[in-house]
Amino acid sequence: MMRTRPLKVALLGCGVVGSEVTRIMTTHADDLTQRIGAPVELVGIAVRRPDRVREGVPAELITTDATALVKRDDVDVVVEVIGGIEPARSLITTAFEHGASVVSANKALLAQDGAALHAAAEQHGVDLYYEAAVAGAIPLVRPLRESLAGDKVNRVLGIVNGTTNFILDKMDSSGAGYSEALDEATALGYAEADPTADVEGFDAAAKAAILAGIAFHTRVRLDDVYREGMTEVTAADFASAKQMGCTIKLLAICERAADGRSVTARVHPAMIPLTHPLASVREAYNAVFIEADAAGQLMFYGPGAGGSPTASAVLGDLVAVCRNKVAEATGPGESAYTRLPVSTMGEVVTRYHISLDVADKPGVLAQVATVFAEHGVSIDTVRQQGKDGEASLVVVTHRAADAALSATVEALRKLDTVRGVASIMRVEGE
Amino acid sequence: MMRTRPLKVALLGCGVVGSEVTRIMTTHADDLTQRIGAPVELVGIAVRRPDRVREGVPAELITTDATALVKRDDVDVVVEVIGGIEPARSLITTAFEHGASVVSANKALLAQDGAALHAAAEQHGVDLYYEAAVAGAIPLVRPLRESLAGDKVNRVLGIVNGTTNFILDKMDSSGAGYSEALDEATALGYAEADPTADVEGFDAAAKAAILAGIAFHTRVRLDDVYREGMTEVTAADFASAKQMGCTIKLLAICERAADGRSVTARVHPAMIPLTHPLASVREAYNAVFIEADAAGQLMFYGPGAGGSPTASAVLGDLVAVCRNKVAEATGPGESAYTRLPVSTMGEVVTRYHISLDVADKPGVLAQVATVFAEHGVSIDTVRQQGKDGEASLVVVTHRAADAALSATVEALRKLDTVRGVASIMRVEGE
Repeated sequence: MMRTRPLKVALLGCGVVGSEVTRIMTTHADDLTQRIGAPVELVGIAVRRPDRVREGVPAELITTDATALVKRDDVDVVVEVIGGIEPARSLITTAFEHGASVVSANKALLAQDGAALHAAAEQHGVDLYYEAAVAGAIPLVRPLRESLAGDKVNRVLGIVNGTTNFILDKMDSSGAGYSEALDEATALGYAEADPTADVEGFDAAAKAAILAGIAFHTRVRLDDVYREGMTEVTAADFASAKQMGCTIKLLAICERAADGRSVTARVHPAMIPLTHPLASVREAYNAVFIEADAAGQLMFYGPGAGGSPTASAVLGDLVAVCRNKVAEATGPGESAYTRLPVSTMGEVVTRYHISLDVADKPGVLAQVATVFAEHGVSIDTVRQQGKDGEASLVVVTHRAADAALSATVEALRKLDTVRGVASIMRVEGE
Repeated sequence: MMRTRPLKVALLGCGVVGSEVTRIMTTHADDLTQRIGAPVELVGIAVRRPDRVREGVPAELITTDATALVKRDDVDVVVEVIGGIEPARSLITTAFEHGASVVSANKALLAQDGAALHAAAEQHGVDLYYEAAVAGAIPLVRPLRESLAGDKVNRVLGIVNGTTNFILDKMDSSGAGYSEALDEATALGYAEADPTADVEGFDAAAKAAILAGIAFHTRVRLDDVYREGMTEVTAADFASAKQMGCTIKLLAICERAADGRSVTARVHPAMIPLTHPLASVREAYNAVFIEADAAGQLMFYGPGAGGSPTASAVLGDLVAVCRNKVAEATGPGESAYTRLPVSTMGEVVTRYHISLDVADKPGVLAQVATVFAEHGVSIDTVRQQGKDGEASLVVVTHRAADAALSATVEALRKLDTVRGVASIMRVEGE
């Protein structure tokens, strides 16, 4: 039942991902035809710099007029790999208006305007797929949207940014400080010249917003995601983590509240036990845990970025939306029917690891313990260490609301006997 | 755009999985309605023993006439969780003939008759989904069929049987022998009274056949899968593995030949390095590595069996085929266009770990090394150990064709100086 009229594909962007998409569409054309049930033809590639040399990319397909390309009524699918909000958003909307389905790798745009884009796709009876927007080649969007569609997801916990994982892994294995590890990541091409989006957690927060929305069938905007970067993590923090049998990872955590009536989404560095599978995720790899009522604990692991892995995810979506076009159907759209409120970070229940520099005299521990008790925060363990007349107290708490934990820290700072708060880190994955 | 006429579902089998499917369909009815776009109604449950007490299962839905149930023209979807070849095959075929899509968890049937069933589904314009047939709740069928549809999969390597992994994990951690570990698995409900299907690798081989077919877009029948159980694995093998920095797992391995013109599928115990992520898969968990050209290495981990996880996979498929029914479309069917030949085990390229009991006299190593050389098998490492006048030689080879490796072992057995071959184990995952 092979259809002979080819499906026409327009590509927006031809950087690392776009050129890999082009290459695979050319070299694997026969396979794609078989898998879609129709030939697929690349009819145009919109770029900003048409004169740049792009090996293996047919020069006659290159255009600088992206708007004209997405307005072509013969285009069945638009693949958007330019990133950023504009002009990507306008181009995708125009593509929908002209009857094209869209495959996008644009996490920032999906996190910010996912609801509006989904509505536009539905209005025009076309598809919006974006597996590549979260964790590169690792299938996450499809498993959450489809494989777990009959289950109830309670938690998504993962490493979704390769750059920061590379840096933290270096700090852990070599004892290097943050800047030194960042320099190495930059030299090896794992970090961009301006690493802000990665190290400040913006990239991970966008992915957390997308994952939380799909997992809980609700809407979570980028602004709803609590975000803390990892630039303040020190070699001393890693030393403390090791003493606890832990390492430090930048985690994206999306949770359904115990009563099921709200959700939270957050990105911050946290200690996790070395026995946790996420602790052994090395270099720039990503891994995501999903906990669901019936399925239990699932983990997905793989390369979270890079041209080829991202292209693999884009092409998987391309095959899916092309099949839908052939069948004159659409895939699952947005499923945000629960409309659960997103709680603030203060309502998140977690644990703290706190290092305090304190006066080395009797009664300090009693004072400190009183402050915890007054805020309703229960202490799990305390370790006292003397050093040169000074002393340090390392406290690990039981689970408590983040607001209570941070109020405890504020009160501790006011004690005369507390010289300083050396570090505060959340503890997860237990 | 909610449809109000409910989709009607018939359930075949109401054991551990079926009763969990029933429970979730009842308790999560509203969620399923939202996710499908139409209400879904369980209209009949076919069982063999109608008098058995099944908590939470509506008695009025129970019937012993499965054939009449699947012949009902108002049934949209049939969920088959009875297992085995017959009557499952006839019932599924009848369901197709009466216009119903089918969700099945039946690995034995899919491995044996997948091609014919897919053809029947396509002929009648309905769906055949079976995520639950491979590795319980872990999404594998959908990622291979859909997420990686634009990529080229070269290898699938995994632990796909929880019972044997539980037994091997116990042997590894406690030093127990096979029978002792099997007894514990049976006592804890991880092994069935007759554990043959698990411990002899039949269950894993069926899954390997299904995975290889989907991964390589070809057909691999159960008979094409090389199968070796794990009942011969000894505590001494684990001791040898430890000396090599390895553990032993029962692996399912599906590979595309280097020239791309053939595939292999096999199930056997093998040593894998402790540093390999599969080495840390404990108890009855499953985990599968997928290696693809563009995506690189992906891993999927989770509970591979059990009522709830399997029900999660069944319900994910149920939502998908119901959505397709609402859209009057079908999902991706069989994609076996490559029709690649399946090579025999002799053509598989792998490594051997061989323990030999040898005479403790000069020249033995030279003799043994000559035998390897004559068969074109290159030696990686040799370790000699003396014990009470006897000596042992542990040889680890480089990669070679399995036929050359087994011919080498046969020739070694004929040497006067070789008293016996204590163990032979393949080495994978490097």
